[in-house]
Amino acid sequence: MNPRIGFIGLGIMGRPMCKNLLKAGYELVVCGHIDKGPVEELAAAGAKTADSPRQVAAQTDILITMLPNSPQVEEVVLGENGVIAGARPGLVLVDMSSIAPLVSRSLAAALAAKGVEMLDAPVSGGEPKAIQGTLSVMVGGKQDVFDRCFPVLKAMASSVVLTGAIGAGNVAKLANQVIVALNIAAISEALVLAAKAGVDPQLVFQAIRGGLAGSAVLEAKAPLMLDRNFNPGFRLNLHIKDLANALDTAHQVGAPLPLTAFVMEMMQTLKAEGLGDSDHAVILRYFELISHTELKS
Amino acid sequence: MNPRIGFIGLGIMGRPMCKNLLKAGYELVVCGHIDKGPVEELAAAGAKTADSPRQVAAQTDILITMLPNSPQVEEVVLGENGVIAGARPGLVLVDMSSIAPLVSRSLAAALAAKGVEMLDAPVSGGEPKAIQGTLSVMVGGKQDVFDRCFPVLKAMASSVVLTGAIGAGNVAKLANQVIVALNIAAISEALVLAAKAGVDPQLVFQAIRGGLAGSAVLEAKAPLMLDRNFNPGFRLNLHIKDLANALDTAHQVGAPLPLTAFVMEMMQTLKAEGLGDSDHAVILRYFELISHTELKS
Repeated sequence: MNPRIGFIGLGIMGRPMCKNLLKAGYELVVCGHIDKGPVEELAAAGAKTADSPRQVAAQTDILITMLPNSPQVEEVVLGENGVIAGARPGLVLVDMSSIAPLVSRSLAAALAAKGVEMLDAPVSGGEPKAIQGTLSVMVGGKQDVFDRCFPVLKAMASSVVLTGAIGAGNVAKLANQVIVALNIAAISEALVLAAKAGVDPQLVFQAIRGGLAGSAVLEAKAPLMLDRNFNPGFRLNLHIKDLANALDTAHQVGAPLPLTAFVMEMMQTLKAEGLGDSDHAVILRYFELISHTELKS
Repeated sequence: MNPRIGFIGLGIMGRPMCKNLLKAGYELVVCGHIDKGPVEELAAAGAKTADSPRQVAAQTDILITMLPNSPQVEEVVLGENGVIAGARPGLVLVDMSSIAPLVSRSLAAALAAKGVEMLDAPVSGGEPKAIQGTLSVMVGGKQDVFDRCFPVLKAMASSVVLTGAIGAGNVAKLANQVIVALNIAAISEALVLAAKAGVDPQLVFQAIRGGLAGSAVLEAKAPLMLDRNFNPGFRLNLHIKDLANALDTAHQVGAPLPLTAFVMEMMQTLKAEGLGDSDHAVILRYFELISHTELKS
């Protein structure tokens, strides 16, 4: 029999993920927080509704959370009328938010005391992939819990990979976000150099994309940079959140991140310039600012 | 009628490039410098030999140079018995070395005074691609000179792209090398973070390679890093040379390269540790050193 699914966090990502679960035939219980619009939208699509995380937990087998950051997940799980208050042995919490791995570990420990299992399962891929059901999910937790939840995750994702014990999903996500941030910065630094040296950055992009400098970031972001189109996409402020988690985690485990720290300060510069809601490709602007130039093709 | 080709610089890259020119049916004149072995090897393969760049220039239509850096190219072109001494109107110098773009421009100006055209045409891809004839060539120069030399370059390369006027080939190459160096450092920083946080970097690699963090560098270098195999490949010392040219060029045109400068200092740390002849994937060692760890899968 299909497990009953709970879902908390009905934002830009959560709503389409819920719809893919309904489409796959799962019984779904949702609860909203402030804005009732998303709850009504999902109720119309066939979901049941509940008034608190506690009530969602009480009537489901697998409870998914998709929230902005660590404090919101802690509140939903541990707060008054939180998941833990409605928990019973056998429930599995699958936190798909991108949060600090050490918070995932401490939440899992608190839930284990109630017989509740947990996976941390952050995703990569934005709203379009959430809608298409082609997210990539990086999962931390026990193999047997992963196996039980795998079909549910596959209803929302094309790639679902177990990367280790609890917290390992978020560690993989942070590694991903470190590489993406630094590669955006690298491409920005290189294209501004080319432009300042009098060479058309569009032609440089064409000349290098097939070689060792080629990357998914280059293909996705260089065209936006060359058009100076910074509509989100993935907002700079969200990437700042991820790098803050990466730096916190790194410092707690003794892994200095000198380049991430440097790019974080570039992002803070841009946030202070009012660009926090732009796509993270706007890192280009930092290099334009310090070089007094604008990319032109 | 096929142009007669001269080739100066019979190193690890130059020798297989010459063989591909011979294979394509070009008449080839080479001259060696210190070690006579490569000259004899190419003579046995059908090349004519000459005693100086001047003599090579005097009997060829397109003269290719493939040398370590700017000073060697300046010596071969402008020095005693250099190319310029044997030059005549109609000769084309195709410098395939990776050198400073501003040096390409000054050499082109000196040659223009003798009626000699020049392309700067640095390559990406190492010895294996030189052997296979699948290098990528980034070319700066005039369109008609590019068109004339295109078939000759195609005998050594799969991709030959004109990126602008003289110097633009080397600017594209520097942009390429900046991105590659920073992406190697980014991957190193991320994988060491994962390892220090207790997560198997091999699984992180598997989880992220298909997403936005994916890149040619990740595919080529992460497996080497995970094996801690730093056999060259592309030597760190050569990448240091390229970043020195990038920084020099950038500072002359007013484009600060803060991340490149930082990674350059990481490379200098490793050079001082005696790792200059390792593959540039050895940048990983910098992050291992500062985190007191070694990647283990």
